[in-house]
Amino acid sequence: METSLTAALIIIGDEVLSGRTRDSHLQMIAEFLAPYGIDLVEARILPDQPTTIVDAVNTLRRTCTYVFTTGGIGPTHDDKTADAIAAAFDRPISEREDALDCLRQHYLPRGLELNDARRRMARIPEGASLIANPVSGAPGFQTENVFTLAGVPSIARAMLDDIGHRLKSGAIVQSVSVRLDGAKEGALAAWLEEAAAGVPETSVGCYPWFDAQGGGTVLVARGRNLSELESIKILFAKKVDANAKEMRNADV
Amino acid sequence: METSLTAALIIIGDEVLSGRTRDSHLQMIAEFLAPYGIDLVEARILPDQPTTIVDAVNTLRRTCTYVFTTGGIGPTHDDKTADAIAAAFDRPISEREDALDCLRQHYLPRGLELNDARRRMARIPEGASLIANPVSGAPGFQTENVFTLAGVPSIARAMLDDIGHRLKSGAIVQSVSVRLDGAKEGALAAWLEEAAAGVPETSVGCYPWFDAQGGGTVLVARGRNLSELESIKILFAKKVDANAKEMRNADV
Repeated sequence: METSLTAALIIIGDEVLSGRTRDSHLQMIAEFLAPYGIDLVEARILPDQPTTIVDAVNTLRRTCTYVFTTGGIGPTHDDKTADAIAAAFDRPISEREDALDCLRQHYLPRGLELNDARRRMARIPEGASLIANPVSGAPGFQTENVFTLAGVPSIARAMLDDIGHRLKSGAIVQSVSVRLDGAKEGALAAWLEEAAAGVPETSVGCYPWFDAQGGGTVLVARGRNLSELESIKILFAKKVDANAKEMRNADV
Repeated sequence: METSLTAALIIIGDEVLSGRTRDSHLQMIAEFLAPYGIDLVEARILPDQPTTIVDAVNTLRRTCTYVFTTGGIGPTHDDKTADAIAAAFDRPISEREDALDCLRQHYLPRGLELNDARRRMARIPEGASLIANPVSGAPGFQTENVFTLAGVPSIARAMLDDIGHRLKSGAIVQSVSVRLDGAKEGALAAWLEEAAAGVPETSVGCYPWFDAQGGGTVLVARGRNLSELESIKILFAKKVDANAKEMRNADV
């Protein structure tokens, strides 16, 4: 078991950057990784542009335990991710028999032709291992520590089922959170800083919201040190009580 | 009027990377920039970690016309963005009288104390100009081509109202999109590649969806060359007719 396992996510697609499609991969992959104790430490959203993809893959695969990419592995001319991954690893890429098999198994029973466009999806970097796609056949692939998934969320989600067994796992991050209705972040800050200083291995955050009722603040502590989490939980609970008392007094 | 105006977005916050909060800034800012003809070309989601923020700001402010950051300018100990921006520009940062005025105008009429934590929000890099925050007082700021906004979506949105007048504008990207129920991406690919080759200045994309009814595909063309868009619109319309005919035949 390692203590610090990290991942980066590269979301590829003009349609996300243009605002046409709202990303849902980040949250999905962060939640998938959490039970493995793997922290998502950076995400980048990039256009379908090979050089930008190559640079990001090469930067992040060296600093993170794992890199996930989503998008750009379909059958059309704007799908450029497989070639970019091959270029990043300086490996050849060609149509592979194992990948063609996946396509045949999906398309032929459905009476669909395995045309040239669909065969493009069997182009996989040399030495990469395939990732099963039970939704639409065309596989993802793993190149060393880089997992390349489809962009369609339901397919990407299904591919994750063939990834979990390949991952190392670390200590799981636990979190504690409380909601303080009506509490102002600025009034909590000094107390919170002191509380955070007492739990140095725990990340303590403060997230205000604003609405017509005056809003409030959510406190969140995240970390792997259970005794620290236990002590911050007690502090949070006291603050919730104190806040409720203040709110009642304010009502009088 | 310039022809190519670009922007990058840096979303700062552990809560987005952990999956606790789903990002809404990317889509909001892409949509805000579209009428100015400014393309969002990259987004990064980063933890509240100064060195990572400094590196990303310095990389992106040199390659893009504008950079937007969101998050990390509140009153608590985990708000590290203002210092990171000052470090990126190698400028001093201190409490500024103009920013303190914004805070006084918000807090004092509401009977709220301007305590040390809140005063932290008046720490602004030297020479940066303030961005008004009508929601909660504490200003954002512009340092050269970098706009630093709050993380709370309603505040970030309100701050954009004080940014539009500072931006250059370029030719607006127009888009054409059609929906082909039941159409398979792999069957469209060869036709689409040829169509795209005929409109070299236009970005043509293909976005499939999958559902129990067999899914379908959306075709999208985006660009600034209006005659190209007009011709691709005609091709798309023909494809919609042909697809509808195929679907009717398949039903027989």
